[in-house]
Amino acid sequence: MDMSEDSATTGPGRLMAAEIAEQPAVWERLLGIEGRARIHDAADLLAKRPPRFVLLVARGTSDHAALYAKYVVEILHGLPAGLVSPSTMTAYRARPDLREVLVIAVSQSGGSPDLVTTMEVARARGALTLAVTNNASSPLAQSADVHLDVLAGPELAVAATKSYTAQLLALSLLLERLRGGDGGAAAALPELAVQVLAKDDQVAAAAQRYRFAQRLVTTGRGYSYPTAREAALKLMETSYLSAQAFSGADLLHGPLAMIDPQVPVLAVMAAGAGGDAMRAVVPRLREVRADVFCVGSAEHVTQFQHGVTLPDGVREDLSPLLEILPFQQLALHLAVARGEDPDAPRGLRKVTETL
Amino acid sequence: MDMSEDSATTGPGRLMAAEIAEQPAVWERLLGIEGRARIHDAADLLAKRPPRFVLLVARGTSDHAALYAKYVVEILHGLPAGLVSPSTMTAYRARPDLREVLVIAVSQSGGSPDLVTTMEVARARGALTLAVTNNASSPLAQSADVHLDVLAGPELAVAATKSYTAQLLALSLLLERLRGGDGGAAAALPELAVQVLAKDDQVAAAAQRYRFAQRLVTTGRGYSYPTAREAALKLMETSYLSAQAFSGADLLHGPLAMIDPQVPVLAVMAAGAGGDAMRAVVPRLREVRADVFCVGSAEHVTQFQHGVTLPDGVREDLSPLLEILPFQQLALHLAVARGEDPDAPRGLRKVTETL
Repeated sequence: MDMSEDSATTGPGRLMAAEIAEQPAVWERLLGIEGRARIHDAADLLAKRPPRFVLLVARGTSDHAALYAKYVVEILHGLPAGLVSPSTMTAYRARPDLREVLVIAVSQSGGSPDLVTTMEVARARGALTLAVTNNASSPLAQSADVHLDVLAGPELAVAATKSYTAQLLALSLLLERLRGGDGGAAAALPELAVQVLAKDDQVAAAAQRYRFAQRLVTTGRGYSYPTAREAALKLMETSYLSAQAFSGADLLHGPLAMIDPQVPVLAVMAAGAGGDAMRAVVPRLREVRADVFCVGSAEHVTQFQHGVTLPDGVREDLSPLLEILPFQQLALHLAVARGEDPDAPRGLRKVTETL
Repeated sequence: MDMSEDSATTGPGRLMAAEIAEQPAVWERLLGIEGRARIHDAADLLAKRPPRFVLLVARGTSDHAALYAKYVVEILHGLPAGLVSPSTMTAYRARPDLREVLVIAVSQSGGSPDLVTTMEVARARGALTLAVTNNASSPLAQSADVHLDVLAGPELAVAATKSYTAQLLALSLLLERLRGGDGGAAAALPELAVQVLAKDDQVAAAAQRYRFAQRLVTTGRGYSYPTAREAALKLMETSYLSAQAFSGADLLHGPLAMIDPQVPVLAVMAAGAGGDAMRAVVPRLREVRADVFCVGSAEHVTQFQHGVTLPDGVREDLSPLLEILPFQQLALHLAVARGEDPDAPRGLRKVTETL
């Protein structure tokens, strides 16, 4: 069943559909006067204590934004970076030496107690701390030296969409500012997002093919690997299938064994080094007769039977913002096609409190 | 079908079965005169340049040993640590500032070109480099400042088993030596492994229950999270089902939605802070009527219908060595029960070359 205009505003998944559609406007807010001022202020505070090492801490969807930032820090800042396992500082009470370390926590709600504890410990142990949240009055925002608001507005759907791309953009702009850039390359993104979102019918049709799939695999490399991870999580949250993400390289180290024509593969292959590094994976996927849906540049997408082509000319480190959009739509349409309401996933709550 | 004595020496999976059984002897070698000398030599070389940060790089099974080492470094050494995405230094040619950084590469074969490149870049950028491999003449071993041989002997089965626990033990002993410890707590492990491996019949019976499962979830926290990851990979490699690992905390941030009574959960809950932190997950699993198989301490295992109890009195950071054993057996028995040969998984090669 296609999502008609009508069901899009009243039926199952209407909150998620509205928030997916809202993304170009959210990005404009971040790129505009309000967002720019906040990003500049945060960058000025961070620039006073340049780090030697960057740690990121997050959970769920926000963890994929943190992973994206890790790639940016490693590649464009030339700094070693790591993702913190929060349990080390909470359950195990580790008190690491964090002098010259920037610790970045990413969270939509800013409400998860384990992240707050991690930030408190990090500050006490000498780190400079930055919280990136969608709620300036949240405990996490309050606990950090510096807070950056992603300005996504209230997010009502349980499956995070607009807050994810707002996190990506806020982190990208902040880090670019710290590198002395002007963020100009991102200015075209809202327009390009409108173009990508307009391919909704194509995605809705593709969703029908996965109506009875029980499990699938997502894959990408480099900047696109966080997209593969986030796509898998969206599909799990809304459509209750097993969706596993692998970097293209890791896929060849074992998990390839479980791919056959009954296990669809969703590949992310944008223009650039990450998509190019996926070329080695393509013949191996053919060998196992994998059914592949590709989101990426025309050059890559045309190699496969199914996919959505992204616009040309986007700087590779910005393409994750566009790449995820068709997967958000896919998660929505697939859930509805399977008779589920993605706005009310079973067993989930919007704010998850883990200790 | 049970693995009879006979099929264990001649039938499908005989290589994997032999290497699983060999583990106590491999550990004794590492704990004995030969292993101790190598560990002391490596520790002496590393102690000359104490790091401020530790980065780890690995793929596949070895990545889970690296993740284990990350927990040890963060918790017991109080140092920030991160897992490197190799693509940053290969595909994206990042050249990070790695002064005062210890970079540890973990690989059974030592043959993966991307790891060699990462080590070469790391050395050139000021890092102290350590390779932990099962092949002293491998390119990776040659590329590092310091090499530690895990002494597991030739590994013939495609699904790594003995090399994984040898990596865990070698890393554990090396790091303990760097902390000034004597490694004495590990001395009992080979005997305890014999006890755990003797529960093979129990695991073989359990494997029958998963004969027709298409997907499952593994979960654990802290030191046991790498075990959950490795258990999932073993099951994917040998039995071609979708097996997804989540930290107990991440499970509650989304993936819980896809668990129902048709998606078995394999939980790792050893004695200690990691197992205790899983307590919050148990009632949520009950709510969704999950079918749980638990490997861990008696206290935790008795909460569920199915499981394998581990011996008491093991220091928590050493328990991953024992935790993985029943899952290796489960992967073997399940593959055989499904009519597969775990020694010849489709689509896989023993040495995976990724760039």
